Amino acid sequence: HVIFYSTNMRLRLPLLCIILEVILIILFGTLVEYNDDTHAMLWNENRTDSATRNDHENEFYYRYPSFQDVHVMIFVGFGFLMTFLQRYGFSSVGFNFLIAAFSLQWATLMQGFFHGLHHGKIHVGVTSMINADFCTGSVLISFGAVLGKTSPVQLLVMAIFEVTLFAVNEFILLSILGINDAGGSMTIHTFGAYFGLMVTRVLYRPNLDKSKHRNSSVYHSDLFAMIGTIYLWMFWPSFNSAITNYGDPQHRTAMNTYYSLAACTLATFAFSALVNPEGKLDMVHIQNAALAGGVAVGTAGEMMLTAFGAMIVGFLAGTISVLGYKYLTPVLESKLKIQDTCGIHNLHGMPGVLGAVVGAVTAALASPDVYGHGLQRVFADVETGKWNPQSRGGFQAISLAVTLGMALFGGLITGFILKLPIYGAPPDTHCFEDGLYWENMLLYKTISPVYLRNNIENVQQTCDSLSDH
Amino acid sequence: HVIFYSTNMRLRLPLLCIILEVILIILFGTLVEYNDDTHAMLWNENRTDSATRNDHENEFYYRYPSFQDVHVMIFVGFGFLMTFLQRYGFSSVGFNFLIAAFSLQWATLMQGFFHGLHHGKIHVGVTSMINADFCTGSVLISFGAVLGKTSPVQLLVMAIFEVTLFAVNEFILLSILGINDAGGSMTIHTFGAYFGLMVTRVLYRPNLDKSKHRNSSVYHSDLFAMIGTIYLWMFWPSFNSAITNYGDPQHRTAMNTYYSLAACTLATFAFSALVNPEGKLDMVHIQNAALAGGVAVGTAGEMMLTAFGAMIVGFLAGTISVLGYKYLTPVLESKLKIQDTCGIHNLHGMPGVLGAVVGAVTAALASPDVYGHGLQRVFADVETGKWNPQSRGGFQAISLAVTLGMALFGGLITGFILKLPIYGAPPDTHCFEDGLYWENMLLYKTISPVYLRNNIENVQQTCDSLSDH
Amino acid sequence: HVIFYSTNMRLRLPLLCIILEVILIILFGTLVEYNDDTHAMLWNENRTDSATRNDHENEFYYRYPSFQDVHVMIFVGFGFLMTFLQRYGFSSVGFNFLIAAFSLQWATLMQGFFHGLHHGKIHVGVTSMINADFCTGSVLISFGAVLGKTSPVQLLVMAIFEVTLFAVNEFILLSILGINDAGGSMTIHTFGAYFGLMVTRVLYRPNLDKSKHRNSSVYHSDLFAMIGTIYLWMFWPSFNSAITNYGDPQHRTAMNTYYSLAACTLATFAFSALVNPEGKLDMVHIQNAALAGGVAVGTAGEMMLTAFGAMIVGFLAGTISVLGYKYLTPVLESKLKIQDTCGIHNLHGMPGVLGAVVGAVTAALASPDVYGHGLQRVFADVETGKWNPQSRGGFQAISLAVTLGMALFGGLITGFILKLPIYGAPPDTHCFEDGLYWENMLLYKTISPVYLRNNIENVQQTCDSLSDH
Repeated sequence: HVIFYSTNMRLRLPLLCIILEVILIILFGTLVEYNDDTHAMLWNENRTDSATRNDHENEFYYRYPSFQDVHVMIFVGFGFLMTFLQRYGFSSVGFNFLIAAFSLQWATLMQGFFHGLHHGKIHVGVTSMINADFCTGSVLISFGAVLGKTSPVQLLVMAIFEVTLFAVNEFILLSILGINDAGGSMTIHTFGAYFGLMVTRVLYRPNLDKSKHRNSSVYHSDLFAMIGTIYLWMFWPSFNSAITNYGDPQHRTAMNTYYSLAACTLATFAFSALVNPEGKLDMVHIQNAALAGGVAVGTAGEMMLTAFGAMIVGFLAGTISVLGYKYLTPVLESKLKIQDTCGIHNLHGMPGVLGAVVGAVTAALASPDVYGHGLQRVFADVETGKWNPQSRGGFQAISLAVTLGMALFGGLITGFILKLPIYGAPPDTHCFEDGLYWENMLLYKTISPVYLRNNIENVQQTCDSLSDH
Repeated sequence: HVIFYSTNMRLRLPLLCIILEVILIILFGTLVEYNDDTHAMLWNENRTDSATRNDHENEFYYRYPSFQDVHVMIFVGFGFLMTFLQRYGFSSVGFNFLIAAFSLQWATLMQGFFHGLHHGKIHVGVTSMINADFCTGSVLISFGAVLGKTSPVQLLVMAIFEVTLFAVNEFILLSILGINDAGGSMTIHTFGAYFGLMVTRVLYRPNLDKSKHRNSSVYHSDLFAMIGTIYLWMFWPSFNSAITNYGDPQHRTAMNTYYSLAACTLATFAFSALVNPEGKLDMVHIQNAALAGGVAVGTAGEMMLTAFGAMIVGFLAGTISVLGYKYLTPVLESKLKIQDTCGIHNLHGMPGVLGAVVGAVTAALASPDVYGHGLQRVFADVETGKWNPQSRGGFQAISLAVTLGMALFGGLITGFILKLPIYGAPPDTHCFEDGLYWENMLLYKTISPVYLRNNIENVQQTCDSLSDH
Repeated sequence: HVIFYSTNMRLRLPLLCIILEVILIILFGTLVEYNDDTHAMLWNENRTDSATRNDHENEFYYRYPSFQDVHVMIFVGFGFLMTFLQRYGFSSVGFNFLIAAFSLQWATLMQGFFHGLHHGKIHVGVTSMINADFCTGSVLISFGAVLGKTSPVQLLVMAIFEVTLFAVNEFILLSILGINDAGGSMTIHTFGAYFGLMVTRVLYRPNLDKSKHRNSSVYHSDLFAMIGTIYLWMFWPSFNSAITNYGDPQHRTAMNTYYSLAACTLATFAFSALVNPEGKLDMVHIQNAALAGGVAVGTAGEMMLTAFGAMIVGFLAGTISVLGYKYLTPVLESKLKIQDTCGIHNLHGMPGVLGAVVGAVTAALASPDVYGHGLQRVFADVETGKWNPQSRGGFQAISLAVTLGMALFGGLITGFILKLPIYGAPPDTHCFEDGLYWENMLLYKTISPVYLRNNIENVQQTCDSLSDH
């Protein structure tokens, strides 16, 4: 069977996984070291200087609960959000699992290499773990655009390039331009979205409608997807606050995100009903647009945005996201040939850009009058004494442009690399189909119509055993 | 189609959501401010007084992990617990999401207005977020009573009134009577349950049996519901301890709740099997009664109840809850015309009252001999020097009466408001049915009998595509 | 009906649950006391000695977030991981819930009795709660081996014996031999696995293939199982670090586990595709083998293993686990008559032994040069001044032998006790079947073939009501 041969993963996937992991292990062995807070000698050296116990000042206690919430978002949130497709649940959760597990290791190295070297070594601890998970989130956003149309080998190759470019972009924004983006409206969401959109554009499939009967949800798959949605929604306050400064910034960011998401949810329900002729709610909107409020305060959340400001931003984000799903996504597909399976442009693209703009404006409006001594704890380079709100806002805006450029260019290159016919990508007739890459799918048929038709006798037996009691 | 017109949400739901959110945003802009722990200037002003870093004393680090656990209970716990109905999963999770997102904003204002004003402003931080989530929990308990029989517009209107009355009742109990109820046996569970029971009594539908074939679970819907149950069960220790005093009270409350729930679970399994003629377990009991132990130590959990005491209370709570489902719920429906979809009387009503009584007794038994200097950290007004255990216990008991009165009266008024024929409530024939308010329900039919019957040809094609490989 | 009679739980289960809970309550009342950090008087006595507030030093703030993660692993992780069987979801989550709720209470007593007595009293707090959950985990591992083939009464009886022997083994290892095993590679995983394997060996059913059509997954049951997998995977860093020393050990353990699991996941996907003729991935491997990396760093995780070392261990663990599922499990069943439903030998057995070996080697390689003052914070008896890496490693290795002996011997005895024909075990024809112990299973048939066949008329009506709109 030609189809099977071409999508057979028996050599490709194991070879790539093993080679990648061996390279990772070698690089970790060469380059990675415990940081001051994870190293037995270093942490306790510092401790003995002081008479008092200071274990509670280990960054672990400030960051680990947030890390775990972020971790849940990456693996359960993204993974289950994408199970909405009727026949792609295994791949959604499974490939999400695979590329996240790879990306977080690769991200540790790339982020460490570009902006975390200490005497040639990469120092790791809970903060690097959060940053690695963040970078992974960006890859998973792009995954949403190509969901159902790519092989796991393609996804791993995409992750190699995307993580690398993410780290470069992050380095330019945070280290060179010195801007704020703790929740990653730009670095994570805008970057991941436009990178993924460009990749799916390059991988355009004119005959994708051959699989269109599988490119939709069924009742239970939508409920599984809601598990993902709700976890992303609940833990987004932890996501945006995970790497802000200790104390008030972390606290404030979590709260701003909480209110933004609440307002966003009301906007989502309102516009979902409004754009439907019968006034019915659409699960696609609820699953996705309700999260846009978290994306849109990713940059400004740590600033003195106020709950009031956060709610306005959240409300706007939910609104544009629903309208995007309804009116923009079909146009993107028909006119620009962008087949965006999960609608990441509506959840991460536009809300990410909105978040960048809100961040630029909020930064430009910041002043010592409002922040007091807290100014330098939010905007790190204030200590140099040359606080200039206009240039602050300007650098934030430039960062958005840089991010868009990096994402589109990176996605273009990566898309062409992924177009090579060597990765076992699914044929047009078998997109959105777990059976291509997962075994034992026959079992599924025990409850499917085809099984019913072909195996009446077998069903009869099952029925008898069921009705025994 | 008359039915469709009357339940069409196209104008009603968007209008209500947008108006409510605009009002919320305006009130937040006018009334809400960062508190000392979330404000950049205020937090860092205090900091500079001291030579040592004190970020770890920000309330964020004491309360945020508990807040996130509570948040999971509200959105995943309540949301998925109610997915047990076979055709109401979207509405259970979705409407839970909507009314919770609204209620937490409205609760921030109402609770702030009644007992949190500082110079005319409402100060917000992680504690106010927990309290808002708590108040939301009360609304979601009432939602359980009317589940499947109300439109989202009705639910939002119910939330407006219930949150307001919750804040008034909480103010009377905590600020005027000065009682203890950290885990909300009275303020949350008793109030939410009897409010909801009165609402569903007023909304009594004599012809509800027209929808009875949908008012039950199927296999997978029960598994989704178990997700809700288990999350509520696991995080209940965080719920009860989330706003107790720092240190030993928070630690002790979590532990007492842990043991109460464990004992409650054994009682639930025991009595579930005992009341069934064939000795079979009932998922309804496991999903609900096993949680009663958390409700019943909501008041006394922070006191020196001991694991021993907690286990006795938990065991009793599980027992009365199972017996309630078995023997009381049918009577409530047939005699008192109370149609309680989720059986909230058994999970929140009776265990809430039990919790109030246990709290009164435990408070009356408290003494400096047992609590030492800790007495004033549990019972706040001890500092005045006039510790009187009898009056303590008395005030706790009075609080239960006040709560019951407020809940029943509030539920009565709210019920009559919700009875107006303007909210697009479902007809008797279409209760417990997602299809009324959610689009794309046809997709469900791809695996349903009706689809099978009507679309044999279509199925044939699907079968062929499935059996391709 | 003879079958029904024999598996009827009406008297057996309630009697056992109630008697056990009454005994637990009496023993708790007699033996259990609040520890210094949960007792109102004791905690605040210490506080007044100092001028500064020290609530943040309550162990609650160091351990409670980790406890909650462990709690999720026990109840959601184990519970849902076992829902992979098509007709055993209620029992998987439900019996997991029951025996965990019992075991954590019994474990508190047994662990307290064997190595936690203070003047004849057992002191409890968050650390004892974590340890009780750990011991419960061991019972749930054994549950995986006998899943589908035991009644809830049998499982409770197994828990009584296993918890007791777990506490004895733990006492020998930690208190007598003084070894390290914070994440329980030996005490939890090796013990639980070989105990369970021996129990299932003694309970060998030669005619189990009469139920083999139910001993497999369906599409949605595999997705439910992935909820369990992902939660176990995400929170394993918290599991391994939950009871390590404060500060760097806790931080380091979490990070080592994080990297071990990531590497393990890549190995799992690689070998799952490699061992399949068509190169397809097997859900059984992804659900289980990807977790082996957490098991295998359970002992060495707190040591200076480095991310590099952790990744090698994780990669090995994933590899042997997949190979075990593919090649060893069938042999164990056919040659050794070990029917291991969940393949615990591959997830907990072999990786546990690997973890013990890695721990012994890493301990033997430890030195003050690497750990500095941190040495005594990882290896507690260093304070005595007689640090001897060889004997350290030796004691670790001896501990593995002791654990294996205790587990096999304990499993043997317990297996014979469970073989008595008094517990209502399922007949060979009705293993892996919820209907035996759960009521309302008829509802399941609304979507099943048998219902379709037998109730065409009924279906017709349902169809009509569905197609109303």
